[in-house]
Amino acid sequence: MDALFYVIPLFGVLALVFMALQSSWVSKQEVGNEKMARIAKNIADGAMAFLRAEYSVLAIFVVVVAILLGISGANTEGSSPLVALSFVVGAICSALAGFIGMKVATKANVRTTNAARTGLSHALKVAFRGGAVMGLGVVGLGVLGLGILLIMYTSMTFVEKNELANWNVLLTVLTGFSFGASSIALVARVGGGIYTKAADVGADLVGKVEAGIPEDHPLNPATIADNVGDNVGDVAGMGADLFESYVGSIIGTMVLGLALMSTDTSAFSGDGLAAISPIVLPLLLAGAGILTSILGTYMVNVKEGGNPQKALNIGEFGSTGILIVLSYFIITNVLPESWVFAGKEFTSTGVFIATIIGSIAGVLIGLITEYYTGFGTKPVKKIVDQSVTGAATNIIAGLGVGMQSTAIPIIIIAAAIVGAHEFAGLYGIAIAAVGMLANTGIQLAVDAYGPISDNAGGIAEMAELPKEVRQRTDKLDAVGNTTAAIGKGFAIGSAALTALALFAAFMTTAGIDTIDVANPVVMAGLFLGGMLPFLFSSMAMDSVGKAAMDMIEEVRRQFKDIPELKAALNVMRKNGETEYSEWSKKDQETFDAADGKAEYDKCVDISTKASIREMILPGILAISVPTLVGFFGGAEMLGGLLAGVTVSGVLMAIFQSNAGGAWDNAKKMFEDGVDIKGTMTYKGSDAHKAAVVGDTVGDPFKDTSGPSLNILVKLTSIVALVLAPFIAVDKVDVNININNDETSSIEIPYEAPADKNMSADDVIRY
Amino acid sequence: MDALFYVIPLFGVLALVFMALQSSWVSKQEVGNEKMARIAKNIADGAMAFLRAEYSVLAIFVVVVAILLGISGANTEGSSPLVALSFVVGAICSALAGFIGMKVATKANVRTTNAARTGLSHALKVAFRGGAVMGLGVVGLGVLGLGILLIMYTSMTFVEKNELANWNVLLTVLTGFSFGASSIALVARVGGGIYTKAADVGADLVGKVEAGIPEDHPLNPATIADNVGDNVGDVAGMGADLFESYVGSIIGTMVLGLALMSTDTSAFSGDGLAAISPIVLPLLLAGAGILTSILGTYMVNVKEGGNPQKALNIGEFGSTGILIVLSYFIITNVLPESWVFAGKEFTSTGVFIATIIGSIAGVLIGLITEYYTGFGTKPVKKIVDQSVTGAATNIIAGLGVGMQSTAIPIIIIAAAIVGAHEFAGLYGIAIAAVGMLANTGIQLAVDAYGPISDNAGGIAEMAELPKEVRQRTDKLDAVGNTTAAIGKGFAIGSAALTALALFAAFMTTAGIDTIDVANPVVMAGLFLGGMLPFLFSSMAMDSVGKAAMDMIEEVRRQFKDIPELKAALNVMRKNGETEYSEWSKKDQETFDAADGKAEYDKCVDISTKASIREMILPGILAISVPTLVGFFGGAEMLGGLLAGVTVSGVLMAIFQSNAGGAWDNAKKMFEDGVDIKGTMTYKGSDAHKAAVVGDTVGDPFKDTSGPSLNILVKLTSIVALVLAPFIAVDKVDVNININNDETSSIEIPYEAPADKNMSADDVIRY
Repeated sequence: MDALFYVIPLFGVLALVFMALQSSWVSKQEVGNEKMARIAKNIADGAMAFLRAEYSVLAIFVVVVAILLGISGANTEGSSPLVALSFVVGAICSALAGFIGMKVATKANVRTTNAARTGLSHALKVAFRGGAVMGLGVVGLGVLGLGILLIMYTSMTFVEKNELANWNVLLTVLTGFSFGASSIALVARVGGGIYTKAADVGADLVGKVEAGIPEDHPLNPATIADNVGDNVGDVAGMGADLFESYVGSIIGTMVLGLALMSTDTSAFSGDGLAAISPIVLPLLLAGAGILTSILGTYMVNVKEGGNPQKALNIGEFGSTGILIVLSYFIITNVLPESWVFAGKEFTSTGVFIATIIGSIAGVLIGLITEYYTGFGTKPVKKIVDQSVTGAATNIIAGLGVGMQSTAIPIIIIAAAIVGAHEFAGLYGIAIAAVGMLANTGIQLAVDAYGPISDNAGGIAEMAELPKEVRQRTDKLDAVGNTTAAIGKGFAIGSAALTALALFAAFMTTAGIDTIDVANPVVMAGLFLGGMLPFLFSSMAMDSVGKAAMDMIEEVRRQFKDIPELKAALNVMRKNGETEYSEWSKKDQETFDAADGKAEYDKCVDISTKASIREMILPGILAISVPTLVGFFGGAEMLGGLLAGVTVSGVLMAIFQSNAGGAWDNAKKMFEDGVDIKGTMTYKGSDAHKAAVVGDTVGDPFKDTSGPSLNILVKLTSIVALVLAPFIAVDKVDVNININNDETSSIEIPYEAPADKNMSADDVIRY
Repeated sequence: MDALFYVIPLFGVLALVFMALQSSWVSKQEVGNEKMARIAKNIADGAMAFLRAEYSVLAIFVVVVAILLGISGANTEGSSPLVALSFVVGAICSALAGFIGMKVATKANVRTTNAARTGLSHALKVAFRGGAVMGLGVVGLGVLGLGILLIMYTSMTFVEKNELANWNVLLTVLTGFSFGASSIALVARVGGGIYTKAADVGADLVGKVEAGIPEDHPLNPATIADNVGDNVGDVAGMGADLFESYVGSIIGTMVLGLALMSTDTSAFSGDGLAAISPIVLPLLLAGAGILTSILGTYMVNVKEGGNPQKALNIGEFGSTGILIVLSYFIITNVLPESWVFAGKEFTSTGVFIATIIGSIAGVLIGLITEYYTGFGTKPVKKIVDQSVTGAATNIIAGLGVGMQSTAIPIIIIAAAIVGAHEFAGLYGIAIAAVGMLANTGIQLAVDAYGPISDNAGGIAEMAELPKEVRQRTDKLDAVGNTTAAIGKGFAIGSAALTALALFAAFMTTAGIDTIDVANPVVMAGLFLGGMLPFLFSSMAMDSVGKAAMDMIEEVRRQFKDIPELKAALNVMRKNGETEYSEWSKKDQETFDAADGKAEYDKCVDISTKASIREMILPGILAISVPTLVGFFGGAEMLGGLLAGVTVSGVLMAIFQSNAGGAWDNAKKMFEDGVDIKGTMTYKGSDAHKAAVVGDTVGDPFKDTSGPSLNILVKLTSIVALVLAPFIAVDKVDVNININNDETSSIEIPYEAPADKNMSADDVIRY
């Protein structure tokens, strides 16, 4: 058994070794010309400035919470300081993964641009390997961090001879790791989301709309901030989000695994692996997922002229296929053949089926997301058609598509819950989440590939490279948009299952057996929980609005105060659609004089400060509400709150992400021209302008408030799980003697709450 | 006891007598000039055309469902045909109330216009009394219908000597009444909502935006349909909505009252009123509410130059005050002093407190709604400020305000649930709903006053009356907007409490004691239920979009095909802002020649047909999903579905209604000019145009999809309640012998599900 514990972190090390290989490969690629290098440096510096600011706020938060956790005394045997330790390690692992991922992403972007100067195939490779660093970093640090803590804690006195009570303490201690990851995720997702959209909306509204210059134009002072935002939001934010899901689902499954072990002590017995197999299984599956993810990254290759989408699909689906086969062997070998839980017999094959249910649900939700948001699909075309009558009908159509798009994913989630439970009980729901997330390495690689390609295009534009370079990066970016949509669906689906796993773990730890919505306190909790995602979303959107306003004012100021910028804008306007090469020499000189005069760093600073400032209130909301409800309303009301937050959060996340994605592609469809009721309609038409309004509304929806809800849903559950020992229902042993139909008699030892005035009705409830 | 049953319908008769008095008073008022009469007739005919179309579809539906209910054999003792009878009576009462209310509203509108030619005071009186007819009609027919059925059923063999089992059958039979009311509400609210917004959006987009003619201009062929829509949606739709809540809360309370009686047979004993007081109480409170509503309608008076808002407030709050005093005497006299339920002692004073909690919650939710949507309030001003940077930021701000506005109402609802339960158990939650709704008569009078004033303004415009008339009706209308906002908040709050009352009644009837979200089937139900409001809303918005398109095409066709209209539009454009009296004589002649040439009836027809057609799919969804989940997923999954639909439906209803209301008033704030960061900004500015986009998006939100969710929430519960006997969990008697701490021993007789393979764990759960 001990040997096995040393194997687990090795999977993490393996991931990190391959991450280092990919990272150094990316670094070795050519940067390109001096201008490209300068732009890339601006973006990289901006990204690092954000991380520095973010991490210095986080450091304070982490220290304060760690101290609170350490002195809380919630756990027996002096384990509270260990909870604090787990928390700190979790936070550091997540932060480190984000740091490395972003560092390499901001190297890969310009190298992708440079590779695109000669062809598509190599550019894809650079962008994808840049993304793979993020993917492998997340799974590597997740497994390594958990693995090392596990070795450390098992070597301490309190886990000896597989004592269940000791494992209980150990897992409570380990939940701190997940809480640490959640704290980083909150800041990275919410702060990153605010950053990226403040910059994007600000850059668009003043640059494109007011000054009439194209997107990513070097004259726009907000353009660097906009490109930094892609990294901050879509690389680091997404990475922290999936890190949280990954770790949360593993720990949730371990807690429920312990419940299996405690219930059927004969099936899970002995000193070896069999005794603790339900606890170890999620880690082994994660390890297998690391192997297949590494394999997958090497499957992504495209010949010149080939289809990049196909290349990514081969990597993703190929590694999923291998993972499923591996899982079968792991699960059936590690778990005993059968055991009894909650009066029902379960088998290892059942657990395998639950795992597959999880991974299939993940893929299906992704595909549905693609259907509702993809370029040229029926729902998106509907939004395009409704743009003819103006912005209002475009918006109504987009909101309608977003709301409608919740239906099938929710049916899939509901079916996955019922199916996984049918085959493997509560443990099945948790292991389904692990099944969905085991492949996070390759999934995140594909996700992070998107913003890298997007950045590559921006750099091509700002460095004024020849048109064919931009066309190649656009081709990469178009694939990136599809993968981003699927990735968002995956992130939401995995957040839902992870939250449910944590929810079940919370109930086990808090010692409550039912959360009965017929109990008005639970119903009140359900209402409050359901409301939180609405309030949280409104805060996030408000923050984007405020930060974008600051950005707009700064850009306007620069356009007014910096004479070179002002002059360059004037010659641009004067020459209109004329190619630069056909301008008068004097105009060219005036234009060139503005090069580098825009004060990009001021805009970067505004986005950074705004995102840090605006993130505080939603952060406090997410942590304080479950804490207050738990302490003043009790464990059952908190259970109701969790259920409400999960259901409403998942719905609002799907609604907002998909509405935003659909608006985005509806706008893009005008770029090549689109047939609306027999009339070809192009960029610049009134309908296109209406679609631009929709896209702008969708920006905070899909990149700020929507994805932030993933975090809210998981964070609420993890806060509840951390609180659980404090608010646990005390129990005393009660023997219940059941005389069924007065013909037979069963005697059941059962724990009931230690409430002296317990009524008959209360006893029945428990 | 028998005598009392004869008193109840008398309250209904009283309401109808006063309704007739008010109605004949309204009819006696002067109509005004010939043009006004013609316009009014067009509106009245359009409204009746819609009702005819609606009721002919409904008639088929009602007959089919009645037959299904009649032959279903769900209930014992051959009572199924009686369920069908109750259903038909409920449908007829609701339809009749809608018919009378709309008939009188379409008389009151033009008479209000005419009264406004001489002054404000009399105009207010006409508009308000027109609304009072709707209010008194709803409560009168609700109480009369229920009262007569009750007399009929109690006189039949199956309720003798207060046998509880017989009462159980009787109440099951009576739920049919509520189901009938819900069916009408579905069609009236959803169909009416689609009607009114298809006409409104269509009229605005072609009339105001494309042709550049003012709102309510007689040249716009959709203008009559637009005015019909106000009646169809805001008078008949709101009336049917509140009729459903009114009846649903009464019946839900009766079902829970029976549970009290069954649990403590010693407190509720004897042959008199005391034995059945919990069942009779909601009817008596409704009766008291009728008295105070009648009183209230006579308190609404304003002197010339006085404040109409104050007059309405005196009527509404005055009657609420009297009702609270009356309730105290009724409750403490009718109910026994104390009784025991679920192991806890409750008192009649506790029930009184629960009633007050309900009415206060209703008022508070209304006030919060007013804060988030009112003219000049802080949230609305925020939307105004964000309009400067365009439609996109206006929309983002509005969505943010809508989402934020859910927070406090949800906290109020959660507190009301917990408070009412604390003081009076589950019965308390239901009686709180009755407390909120007892005053429906005056509340609805104030609600219906709004669209009547709105219509009055439209008629003044179309009849080209002097400006001061329009100014007076605008003043009435402005008050109407506030009352409409409060009314919408009230409708949502009452729908929430009614749904909870029906939810509790469903559990009692289906024989389930817990709906445990830890049970994956329940969690799946919760997810599915939470999703329904999103799907339902998307359908409703889609329908508005489609119907508005039809309307737009028809208006465009008329502008093209009818030469007089075309010519008149041209002279209007030519003369621009010039007053009509200063036009050349020839232009005046051309313009006058178009009078009455617009084919209003074709537009009315399009709205009517579209609303009926588009209502079918959401209607099927609302009825079939709970039915399918009930039969295939079981009673507990259905319970989860109900909880999900209620929480998510209430949230989405508040979000959409308030966002829409806030956008509406943000647009209106530009009309008198508004100070944005030191710059006065007026109608016609770019910021105003952006605000118009927001208003158009908000139209289906606040008048179609938002309010329709009230119906969805209640209808799902009532369908579940009607299904409950079919899917009830069979029970057998089990003796549970509890040996607490091995020191004491209690023996409890308890019913457990008749499941032969019941495991120990299952027994504990039940």
